[in-house]
Amino acid sequence: MASTRLHQLAEHLTIKQSSKHPLDPLDGREISAAVAVVRAEKGSLYFNTITLLEPRKKDMLRWLADTSSPRPARVADVIATTKAGQVHDIWVDLEKRSIIKAEVVDGIQPTLIVEEMLSVEEYVRKDPSVIEQCGIIGIAPENMDKVFCDPWTITHDPKYGTKVRAIQALLYYRPNHDDSQYTFPLDFFPIFDVNNKKVIDMEIPPVRRPISLAEPNNYHMPDIEREGGYRTDLKPINITQPEGVSFTIDGRTIRWQNWSIHVGFNYREGIVLNNITFYDKFEGKERPLFYRLSIAEMVVPYGNPDHPHHRKHAFDLGEYGAGNLTNSLSLGCDCKGAIHYMDAEFPTQAGGVKTIKNAICIHEEDAGILFKHTDFRDDSTIVTRGRKLIISQIFTAANYEYCIYWTFLQDGTVQLDVKLTGILNTTAMNPGEDLEGYGTEVYTGVNAHNHQHLFCLRVDPNIDGQNNTIFQSDAVCSPYPVGHEKNKWGNAFTAAKTKFKTVAEAQSDYDAKTSRTWDMANENKLNKHSKKPVSYKLVSRESPALMPKEGSLVWKRAGFARHTVQVTKYKDDQLHPAGRHVVQTSGDPSPGLPAWIAENPQENIENTDVVLWHTFGITHFATPEDFPIMPAEPITLLLRPRNFFEKNPCMDVPPSYNITPTQVKEGKKGCACAASKESVQV
Amino acid sequence: MASTRLHQLAEHLTIKQSSKHPLDPLDGREISAAVAVVRAEKGSLYFNTITLLEPRKKDMLRWLADTSSPRPARVADVIATTKAGQVHDIWVDLEKRSIIKAEVVDGIQPTLIVEEMLSVEEYVRKDPSVIEQCGIIGIAPENMDKVFCDPWTITHDPKYGTKVRAIQALLYYRPNHDDSQYTFPLDFFPIFDVNNKKVIDMEIPPVRRPISLAEPNNYHMPDIEREGGYRTDLKPINITQPEGVSFTIDGRTIRWQNWSIHVGFNYREGIVLNNITFYDKFEGKERPLFYRLSIAEMVVPYGNPDHPHHRKHAFDLGEYGAGNLTNSLSLGCDCKGAIHYMDAEFPTQAGGVKTIKNAICIHEEDAGILFKHTDFRDDSTIVTRGRKLIISQIFTAANYEYCIYWTFLQDGTVQLDVKLTGILNTTAMNPGEDLEGYGTEVYTGVNAHNHQHLFCLRVDPNIDGQNNTIFQSDAVCSPYPVGHEKNKWGNAFTAAKTKFKTVAEAQSDYDAKTSRTWDMANENKLNKHSKKPVSYKLVSRESPALMPKEGSLVWKRAGFARHTVQVTKYKDDQLHPAGRHVVQTSGDPSPGLPAWIAENPQENIENTDVVLWHTFGITHFATPEDFPIMPAEPITLLLRPRNFFEKNPCMDVPPSYNITPTQVKEGKKGCACAASKESVQV
Repeated sequence: MASTRLHQLAEHLTIKQSSKHPLDPLDGREISAAVAVVRAEKGSLYFNTITLLEPRKKDMLRWLADTSSPRPARVADVIATTKAGQVHDIWVDLEKRSIIKAEVVDGIQPTLIVEEMLSVEEYVRKDPSVIEQCGIIGIAPENMDKVFCDPWTITHDPKYGTKVRAIQALLYYRPNHDDSQYTFPLDFFPIFDVNNKKVIDMEIPPVRRPISLAEPNNYHMPDIEREGGYRTDLKPINITQPEGVSFTIDGRTIRWQNWSIHVGFNYREGIVLNNITFYDKFEGKERPLFYRLSIAEMVVPYGNPDHPHHRKHAFDLGEYGAGNLTNSLSLGCDCKGAIHYMDAEFPTQAGGVKTIKNAICIHEEDAGILFKHTDFRDDSTIVTRGRKLIISQIFTAANYEYCIYWTFLQDGTVQLDVKLTGILNTTAMNPGEDLEGYGTEVYTGVNAHNHQHLFCLRVDPNIDGQNNTIFQSDAVCSPYPVGHEKNKWGNAFTAAKTKFKTVAEAQSDYDAKTSRTWDMANENKLNKHSKKPVSYKLVSRESPALMPKEGSLVWKRAGFARHTVQVTKYKDDQLHPAGRHVVQTSGDPSPGLPAWIAENPQENIENTDVVLWHTFGITHFATPEDFPIMPAEPITLLLRPRNFFEKNPCMDVPPSYNITPTQVKEGKKGCACAASKESVQV
Repeated sequence: MASTRLHQLAEHLTIKQSSKHPLDPLDGREISAAVAVVRAEKGSLYFNTITLLEPRKKDMLRWLADTSSPRPARVADVIATTKAGQVHDIWVDLEKRSIIKAEVVDGIQPTLIVEEMLSVEEYVRKDPSVIEQCGIIGIAPENMDKVFCDPWTITHDPKYGTKVRAIQALLYYRPNHDDSQYTFPLDFFPIFDVNNKKVIDMEIPPVRRPISLAEPNNYHMPDIEREGGYRTDLKPINITQPEGVSFTIDGRTIRWQNWSIHVGFNYREGIVLNNITFYDKFEGKERPLFYRLSIAEMVVPYGNPDHPHHRKHAFDLGEYGAGNLTNSLSLGCDCKGAIHYMDAEFPTQAGGVKTIKNAICIHEEDAGILFKHTDFRDDSTIVTRGRKLIISQIFTAANYEYCIYWTFLQDGTVQLDVKLTGILNTTAMNPGEDLEGYGTEVYTGVNAHNHQHLFCLRVDPNIDGQNNTIFQSDAVCSPYPVGHEKNKWGNAFTAAKTKFKTVAEAQSDYDAKTSRTWDMANENKLNKHSKKPVSYKLVSRESPALMPKEGSLVWKRAGFARHTVQVTKYKDDQLHPAGRHVVQTSGDPSPGLPAWIAENPQENIENTDVVLWHTFGITHFATPEDFPIMPAEPITLLLRPRNFFEKNPCMDVPPSYNITPTQVKEGKKGCACAASKESVQV
């Protein structure tokens, strides 16, 4: 049977190996091929994850140096489970159609996938203990179809360890089918075994909180219409590109305004950007900037210490996957203008292929003024508008929405914008209940707990080559007192650069007072003018401290979030800073980044292939205006060229308007060259 | 003669008093009227400043409470000087056409105005000592027309005090008329007496730096064409509003998306926003938010301690004026789309009126996703795009450009965006010179010194009334150790609120670790749901410490910049945090904010009319990519409603797309209601 299957596979598996970039995500045919190979060898399994095993960096560098040489092998990284929950980690060589590594992994749980999430609600509604608890708080048995479940992994509870695939079922009620359930949280928490499809425990609070009888607080159109209707005074803004877009796409490689970017995508990180280069016209060549950029992990710790709320600290990437959870985007809704979409393909649990249409949006936007100068003497002027390229996705993690915008600017800057929207995680409260500062009553009977959203940006820099060094840069006053001959008037200050030589030295925290930033530098190449190492600077000012204390469960599990910046020497497969398998880990010892650092704290990171890990995010104390849906809250950070180019690299963007001193002097007109002709004065 | 003038004035002075908002800037006729009154009484004077003396707050509040009551008087605040430089501070009642206050002020210098700035170059070029120094560094006498001068106030030098109106002449060279002079800074500094139009001193560095022989580094079109030309791969993006804009303007009051904002403008602060309110449909009324918002001052300290560079610490508002320096904006260049402009009118030195066309740009922009949620169960979705209203100006301070964008969002947020562009201040350097970390060689022979841009945002909150209280808000871990019954898992955290009761207590600095923010709260009114005081929160993460040391010249003169937030009790005329007259002040004692605080450090600021002063900005270590013109560098901060509304106030913005759970269940289509129909897939 195995050989028959392989034969069938060979027939339909016509992967155009030659046309694929080695970092292209697996397509549907490759996923099917991997399924076929695994089934042939291992029999019937459930498929949790089938994703590209990215080529070893040395293989990629070899190929990038000569793209006519043989491509690195296409390998599928497969995580599959038996019905009983045994986990198989399997690598499938898709060309050779063979398994090249297979192991049964104990003591871990793989990512929770959508099919598992969807199954919980159905079982929980029928469970007698759940029905009983619902009755206690005021929900009649005949209304169980109005009970809804957001299944969260248990995060970690020593009671279950990793043996049971345990779900904490966050329950809500909808008086009407279209009501927002988050207005009606239930006060108890069934624990559900998702492998065995049964409620295995019931967590009941010492003080009960009957279901809220408040009016619904809704967001769908019919409700807003009922509540007074929509505003009618917004006139349309049309954004069009009558001559088309300014980028080209070859496979998944985008070229735009000197940039070249390969767009990857996986179940876990969502968008992954590879081989980012910038054509430097001064040097007459493509210069490498980043080998790989992604948001590699995140954690959302909640601040209420009462059991079981301490277990709310979702790792939305490691536990669920920003790719798995990604939205199919709608034209003219999620993005406006001329849009190029990329789809995403993932396996189903049963081994089929599902396609998420329009998973990635690629479009340009006007970026306002790129640069301007007016000479006050004669009003000679140049004003040039900028453009940006945005590669974006939106993923839904149960209640929350995360909108991720990788934005490329003409001056060589990479800007990462994240918008947080969606719905607060809510819990039940009694009228007048003292929330002890751990949450806010955002609506009658609705308690929204304090929380943080902490993201881990993984930067694999490639600043003019792989051998890079990370510096911390701080603005510091002169050491000399006011009046000293070297600081007579007290104004002296410099940028103190701290070189990170070892991974242990490289754990650093944001300091706003010193305008702290971090340089990814290539010390082997100095800027022509400044004689400083060519570099890119991380400018990121939204980096709160991790609120869970040292030694706490979150601190142990989300070790990456203990510092703003950490640096490791590059190693293949060190992609996930909270560990490859995050679900239900105890954090004893802390997996991922803390473990890699602990392996060799004195490891050299000077002038070598390094990876920078950056924690950024916000602390959120919810308020009523965040409900029933949060207006999007923005976070932004920059990777900026510093001492990288010999001059401003976008001086050749056509100006909107230019008049030279000579033109002014001679009474001539300037040039409204790229002025926006369709603009009107009102 | 005086009476003849008054008679002439009476004839042409037909100010439609009744149609003017009391906070409208003086228009040309009012400026002329003020000139006429002053001339009639005081004879021939030079006019430095003629601006609206804003009505006393109590008069404004009286009128705002009943706008059919008599309007506060229109009063012109006039600063005029004699030929010898004697300064007159005069208030003119424009209705009564009479001087209501007049004093000769000693020991100060008024704002440096453009006519004065323009005059310096002409004199300096002819001065024998300047010609001699030019010769020493390699500029021939016949090339003196290629020498250009950026006249900066002396800032402060005890040698001149305030007796002499002293200019430090920053000199540059242009090999060709259209070359950027900032590539060719001269190494010496003439001191110019702008009242007596003569060079009074010459500052020559101990080590000479001959004029650079490098190739020009230019930005005008003909130069870029010569250097390889413009990129040709940018396709146009058109932004149109075929049905017009969504705002209305009555006089200078804008109404848009529940906002009402009066737009003022003056010589000093540029845009001033008054009487900002938001119509709260839940409460069915306009709710006051801010009595007044402006950028009230800024300072740009440079970090090189060598004489005379310590004197480079421009107060671009207090010394020159963001209004005086403002650009006339070009349609489709500075802003795109459907634009409403407002002009600005200022006096000339000779008492005429000059109009800056299009000084203020008012327009809408698409703001991306306003909110979104998708239910993972069924993909029922709502996605609503946001819109923003932007009130902007751009001003040129010699080399630099500051782009100011006051942005209003539909969720009740005020976002202030500042973009820094223009040209670095540059100084001469010898080949290979050690810059000692105080500057960067950004181009051959061009040293750009380290510097900061520190702005002072003045917020006069009016959160549901004048009686407000300021709180500092910090995210803090639970005081209980991990394992304690109140913090078993170590995740507990809360927002610690520190109430500022006195001005002395209210001096606070940004702390990124605690996600520090500041609440402007009205403790007399609690949010319906959260029972917390209604408030607006200042969210601003770009607040570096002032680098000049305590006791330094800048520290003394720019006292406002010592802290991120300071709070005072409201007093009429306390508008300028570095003092009303900034030019040439010594900072002994520190004028403005430090003086007001020192007057009564224990003054109550709880539940009363308060003003919040906020320092924000960046520290800039220049690099070659900032030259010859800097790509715009953004700074942003937010004033966000927190516990102000009973729910998200923009749920009634028409969604781009909505499909309800019921529609999904019944196989019906959703509504692509406000989807952007002109968007295309490419």
